[in-house]
Amino acid sequence: MVMRRKVYVEGPRPDIRVPFTEVVLTGDNPPVRLYDTSGPGSEPAVGLPPLRKPWQTGRTQLASARAGIITPEMEYVAIREGVPATLVRDEIAAGRAVLPANINHPESEPMIIGSRFLVKVNANIGTSAVTSSIDEEVEKLTWATQWGADTVMDLSTGQHIHETREAIVRNSPVPIGTVPLYQALEKVKGDPLKLSWEVFRETVIEQAEQGVDYMTIHAGVLLEYVPMAAERVTGIVSRGGSIMAAWCLAEHRENFLYTHFRELCEIFREYDITFSLGDGLRPGSIADANDEAQFAELRTLGELTHIAWEYDVQVMVEGPGHVPMHKIKENVDLQVSLCGGAPFYTLGPLATDIAPAYDHITSAIGAAMIGWFGTAMLCYVTPKEHLGLPNKEDVKAGMIAYKIAAHAADIAKGHPGAQEWDDALSRARFDFRWEDQFELALDPATARSYHDETLPAAPAKTAHFCSMCGPKFCSMKISHEIRAAGMKAKSSEFVDAGGRVYLPVTPNA
Amino acid sequence: MVMRRKVYVEGPRPDIRVPFTEVVLTGDNPPVRLYDTSGPGSEPAVGLPPLRKPWQTGRTQLASARAGIITPEMEYVAIREGVPATLVRDEIAAGRAVLPANINHPESEPMIIGSRFLVKVNANIGTSAVTSSIDEEVEKLTWATQWGADTVMDLSTGQHIHETREAIVRNSPVPIGTVPLYQALEKVKGDPLKLSWEVFRETVIEQAEQGVDYMTIHAGVLLEYVPMAAERVTGIVSRGGSIMAAWCLAEHRENFLYTHFRELCEIFREYDITFSLGDGLRPGSIADANDEAQFAELRTLGELTHIAWEYDVQVMVEGPGHVPMHKIKENVDLQVSLCGGAPFYTLGPLATDIAPAYDHITSAIGAAMIGWFGTAMLCYVTPKEHLGLPNKEDVKAGMIAYKIAAHAADIAKGHPGAQEWDDALSRARFDFRWEDQFELALDPATARSYHDETLPAAPAKTAHFCSMCGPKFCSMKISHEIRAAGMKAKSSEFVDAGGRVYLPVTPNA
Repeated sequence: MVMRRKVYVEGPRPDIRVPFTEVVLTGDNPPVRLYDTSGPGSEPAVGLPPLRKPWQTGRTQLASARAGIITPEMEYVAIREGVPATLVRDEIAAGRAVLPANINHPESEPMIIGSRFLVKVNANIGTSAVTSSIDEEVEKLTWATQWGADTVMDLSTGQHIHETREAIVRNSPVPIGTVPLYQALEKVKGDPLKLSWEVFRETVIEQAEQGVDYMTIHAGVLLEYVPMAAERVTGIVSRGGSIMAAWCLAEHRENFLYTHFRELCEIFREYDITFSLGDGLRPGSIADANDEAQFAELRTLGELTHIAWEYDVQVMVEGPGHVPMHKIKENVDLQVSLCGGAPFYTLGPLATDIAPAYDHITSAIGAAMIGWFGTAMLCYVTPKEHLGLPNKEDVKAGMIAYKIAAHAADIAKGHPGAQEWDDALSRARFDFRWEDQFELALDPATARSYHDETLPAAPAKTAHFCSMCGPKFCSMKISHEIRAAGMKAKSSEFVDAGGRVYLPVTPNA
Repeated sequence: MVMRRKVYVEGPRPDIRVPFTEVVLTGDNPPVRLYDTSGPGSEPAVGLPPLRKPWQTGRTQLASARAGIITPEMEYVAIREGVPATLVRDEIAAGRAVLPANINHPESEPMIIGSRFLVKVNANIGTSAVTSSIDEEVEKLTWATQWGADTVMDLSTGQHIHETREAIVRNSPVPIGTVPLYQALEKVKGDPLKLSWEVFRETVIEQAEQGVDYMTIHAGVLLEYVPMAAERVTGIVSRGGSIMAAWCLAEHRENFLYTHFRELCEIFREYDITFSLGDGLRPGSIADANDEAQFAELRTLGELTHIAWEYDVQVMVEGPGHVPMHKIKENVDLQVSLCGGAPFYTLGPLATDIAPAYDHITSAIGAAMIGWFGTAMLCYVTPKEHLGLPNKEDVKAGMIAYKIAAHAADIAKGHPGAQEWDDALSRARFDFRWEDQFELALDPATARSYHDETLPAAPAKTAHFCSMCGPKFCSMKISHEIRAAGMKAKSSEFVDAGGRVYLPVTPNA
């Protein structure tokens, strides 16, 4: 019977059991195994079991890798990715990949972010001052991981930030990211000018204790860069970036995240938190892409990357935003060279600004391309981008668009095995195995329902045609008939006999 | 008052009146003019007025261009594209652009397809044996052009093909394309082996008389190429391609469309019909992309392109289909070199096969890229691709995804003026001109409704924030405050004073 089920592959020790979604197909067709981010399922009030608790050594993943050690987490991701564990270790050691795993979030299933691995997708959720509740956010988290989110960022900005985050971390099988600046700002009643290193430090430690796996730190927004954004079409569009810019200017001092960066490194090392160096000056419109402000900040992020590495702290670097297609590659090339190959983590980018309500599509175009060029993780964009907070349906739409972009990138960059999924689905399509085709689809229920709109009857599921062309015109049906008729032998014979037909120079009668 | 309205720009003669959609914005912000394909609007039973009737000279557009003549149609498209009329003439004369305009379809508003011009989008509609009616198809035509379809292909295959096409042509302000083979096959009761040049010729003339502007002709599916597709994952997926392949093999003769190609040229010249040389051996899965069969056929299409040009007949060349991102550019480069720069007209391509029900997105990725690389027209793909016939909502979803792809390509290839639309919308966004932002959006109603889901009250339309971040965290609001605070003067002073801040080597206290 055609179905999806969860299977586990055991690693070199019995407590390493790596989940996959196995799609069981009809007849003799071999099952297809897909990467699975959905976790074991939790009772929200209880939370998930602390899977990684027994593996902890007090060393960061980067320190272990540099010491030549393959941690259980690395074994786990090697199985998950279908690559040697030594590759995982070596890429982490070189700083080209991160394995975000706060020691206080033992519930998470290890995953890796780096250009040599599958392109990952992050889903943003979170309450705002205007809308949402804790239960809703936990539901969005679960929903996002069911649709393939590799990490989730909790961007809550309203009431109950601490409690919302606690509920999210305890129920999350994927690494959780945050932007601590948002909570720090809440603590000073929303006035950027009241921010200080002390409030920020306290907030980081509070979140570190809860188990946040990576944090966006806008340490690259330097005082001298702010004027570069003054004449932009859309100024500063990063929330964190604008907050720090306002602080710098008002205080007339350098960004405290920059001046205290080494202290942050020490805190991060203690919990094995991964830096996500924020691009506070990213472009908010294609008009502002690749400008002086953006690239000045990127140079500083490169400097900070190397400092974090001194402390055995893992780093990824955030990227834009809004970039027309012809300016995308420059972003990756520059990031790789300035940041020593640290994983790039980009928001889209949107390839055009004309389609609010469809920015999951405008940005899936840019995301697929930047993933191919080497970006390690894509932050999804939902249809509500620029318009409102995403609801569950928007989270799904964003996830689908981004799983498409990430998978298209995996194929283009030649990740081993990526194309097997496509090929299995294409074979099912060519063989008129409709149920196999639906079950292999990224969204089986929707694929099935679209087919059933015009041909709902059960026999149509085995029919050798569909409603698009009807029985007489089906190219695949004809193709099968051609093949059955011994096409190959027959035509080769014709070619062997030198039977080329040339177009006559004068018209035929 | 913010609104959209249709305006006309007059050309060098009074009967040249080129329509644009003008978006009127608030305050002093200049209106934005957008390309408009919606036509003057028709009463289906009456049809549209014969706009181009007085302009006809008995010469094809290609013959006129070659003679150095700028036709009224060329003047029209020059205004539409915002380029000199001489460029239009020269590109047509060189075969690098086509202006599809059957003398029997005087109702159509002239448009041009070529890599130097705006990337165009074709929408497929049509009845099948299983579903749809004539009224529905005319409604889909009108709907498609309202959402920006530059041409529409009527791919009807069921009953009433002639009547459906008549209704479509008479009501279409955009060029209409067909695949005459479908009707020819109906005439021989669906048996490919009963097809003949005579039946095909009669069908072409019938459609030519009705006013079909371009026709897909699968003349490149040669007998010797068919075996090359035998071992493919998805065989032959073009309906026309599979029909001709079946005929060639059964008859053991060369494709009659190839052997009678010069006769077709003579018929096409008489009506000024444009060839759309079909890619009958295009890949139906990424596994089959860029293979021997596909490129063998492309070489033949190049040969046929040059033959059509001998007859002053305009030509475009169809392309794939399913192509992973890293293999897209090769398609364009090869087509340009083999087909002498004749416009490329591609279906997508889909960058992955895993997402039936979302192939408007999988293919928008490929379409945007191939448009940037030089493809002149993109055939849309709807969410129903591979699953069923598109309904009105699917037509809209396909059109939106493809207008995004085409516009992203226009920006990337640097079409003059393309980015003005983006910039106008981005400025509206930065200024919190919500109504301007909605009205400039590709789909104003949907953008507005998404915003209203969380902040429906009228004051929110002038609010300097939205539901995403709430009032305290709005980066754009902070950006404005920074600008107002004289950021620039203040910080320049800081920089001028040599006030660089360096990161201390030892951690701060």
